[in-house]
Amino acid sequence: MSVLIVGSTALDSIKTPKAENPRLLGGSASHAAVAASFFGPVKLVGVVGDDFPKRYIQLYKRHRIDLQGLQVLPGNTFHWSGEYESNMNNRRTLLTELGVFEKFNPSLPDSYQSTPFVLLANIAPALQHHVLDQMRRPRFVAADTMDLWIKVALPDLLRLLKRLDAFVLNDSEAQQLTGEDNVFVALKAIHRLGPKYVVVKQGSHGSILSGPQGLFLCPAYPLVKVVDPTGAGDSFVGGMMGYLAAGKGPIDGHLRRAMTYGSVIASFCCEGFGVQRTTRVSRAQIDGRVKELERLTRF
Amino acid sequence: MSVLIVGSTALDSIKTPKAENPRLLGGSASHAAVAASFFGPVKLVGVVGDDFPKRYIQLYKRHRIDLQGLQVLPGNTFHWSGEYESNMNNRRTLLTELGVFEKFNPSLPDSYQSTPFVLLANIAPALQHHVLDQMRRPRFVAADTMDLWIKVALPDLLRLLKRLDAFVLNDSEAQQLTGEDNVFVALKAIHRLGPKYVVVKQGSHGSILSGPQGLFLCPAYPLVKVVDPTGAGDSFVGGMMGYLAAGKGPIDGHLRRAMTYGSVIASFCCEGFGVQRTTRVSRAQIDGRVKELERLTRF
Repeated sequence: MSVLIVGSTALDSIKTPKAENPRLLGGSASHAAVAASFFGPVKLVGVVGDDFPKRYIQLYKRHRIDLQGLQVLPGNTFHWSGEYESNMNNRRTLLTELGVFEKFNPSLPDSYQSTPFVLLANIAPALQHHVLDQMRRPRFVAADTMDLWIKVALPDLLRLLKRLDAFVLNDSEAQQLTGEDNVFVALKAIHRLGPKYVVVKQGSHGSILSGPQGLFLCPAYPLVKVVDPTGAGDSFVGGMMGYLAAGKGPIDGHLRRAMTYGSVIASFCCEGFGVQRTTRVSRAQIDGRVKELERLTRF
Repeated sequence: MSVLIVGSTALDSIKTPKAENPRLLGGSASHAAVAASFFGPVKLVGVVGDDFPKRYIQLYKRHRIDLQGLQVLPGNTFHWSGEYESNMNNRRTLLTELGVFEKFNPSLPDSYQSTPFVLLANIAPALQHHVLDQMRRPRFVAADTMDLWIKVALPDLLRLLKRLDAFVLNDSEAQQLTGEDNVFVALKAIHRLGPKYVVVKQGSHGSILSGPQGLFLCPAYPLVKVVDPTGAGDSFVGGMMGYLAAGKGPIDGHLRRAMTYGSVIASFCCEGFGVQRTTRVSRAQIDGRVKELERLTRF
């Protein structure tokens, strides 16, 4: 089955202690769509400016991503620039130029409205609502978020939580949202806000699922070299949703493995700038790392 | 088979945002010995003053810990006092009174010298050497350490690493010792210093084993409430060594499960002040949490 993915489609200029890469393909929806594309059809919803490089359109197409929902507006594509410290965990934003993103008001093509799996990747909660409003009874809806929306758009976000099957956020956001230091207490508090499934991402420490079947501790793939972690969280949730959409039968039967696939695609994402590594990986390499994670965690 | 454990035997006064507990039984050897005692015989090497409460001697005895190697000297027992912040991760030392510990110069009883498993729990590397010098061909030697020894006794510690089968330390210590931010790179660097097995503890994120069979990602048991994490790392390594000593056949066949048992005993340790929770737990409860960790990590 298909996954509809809405989120940001951006140009990222990323500086690390080792290198500087201007105007990479970035944005939550780009990373998530590439990740999901390994498992089945993906429909992208986003907006770019008329400066958006053709090679990035071609890149989406190589991943067989449906671009009917990608608007091209006059003006500049959303441009984000950030710099990582040498531990590759701490980063600071150098620049945010919204460009055409400021006017983003997605109107879904007819062919998108019955997509069974919906991923509301990181974007303003009002836009996540707006997309969801146009969907006809999706089977499974997941959303990601970021610290900014918890700070500036909390009422919208809380209203969104009641419309989701799964909510994905990172550990510091879970703490920010609930005021709870302990992640397992935070998970319970987030369930009370609505979602049946809650996933907390913990970067190199993996992720935690809480759902009707209890907890799942999902490992991160061990990386000896992190080139650029930008988009790892988006790749995780994209890979997870892509895998889920490809599965037959109940969600609960696939969710753990879906997270592990998401985790592995996130690991590839970290090994290159932007989507450079993710777009070059094969399904066999992804399967290989999932198998390896199985071996690394069995006792 | 038996485990010999040398380390500190102390009185800990611990302050958390919720409570204050003076003069608890503490020290690396106390925590490790209690943890190891669930699996088989333990021989303790340590020193206490004449102020050491009788009830703590009785506690050791209830755990069938051999106390022939526990010296009682005139003077005060090593007393440490510390305070935790509300997230229970950051702590600061309020007071360190070495007392009789300053004169600690362990001379092993004959009956100890052929113990097959040796745990050099956290204590000055010179003392770890001194104990190891008195052992007759132990089968498996593991050591723990702390940031202080990396700072003030690095030559002793580096010399010790060449005498170990397994070295256990936490992630910030691994970074301090190797100068490597990436834990998997740090593991490789530590192998080059001598030990065949290296275990990096990551607190609530679990631990990582690196050895001839590759990596093992050991989960931490999910805790919704941490009362006092003091001694969790010592309980981990004590439980691991106790389980290993009880196993038949090659070390590699048991090490993953041994770490998981250590992880579970560390989780119980965190649920009470000092050893209050660990001493009240049953083997069945420990087995129960290990089984649960299996379920929580399968995909």
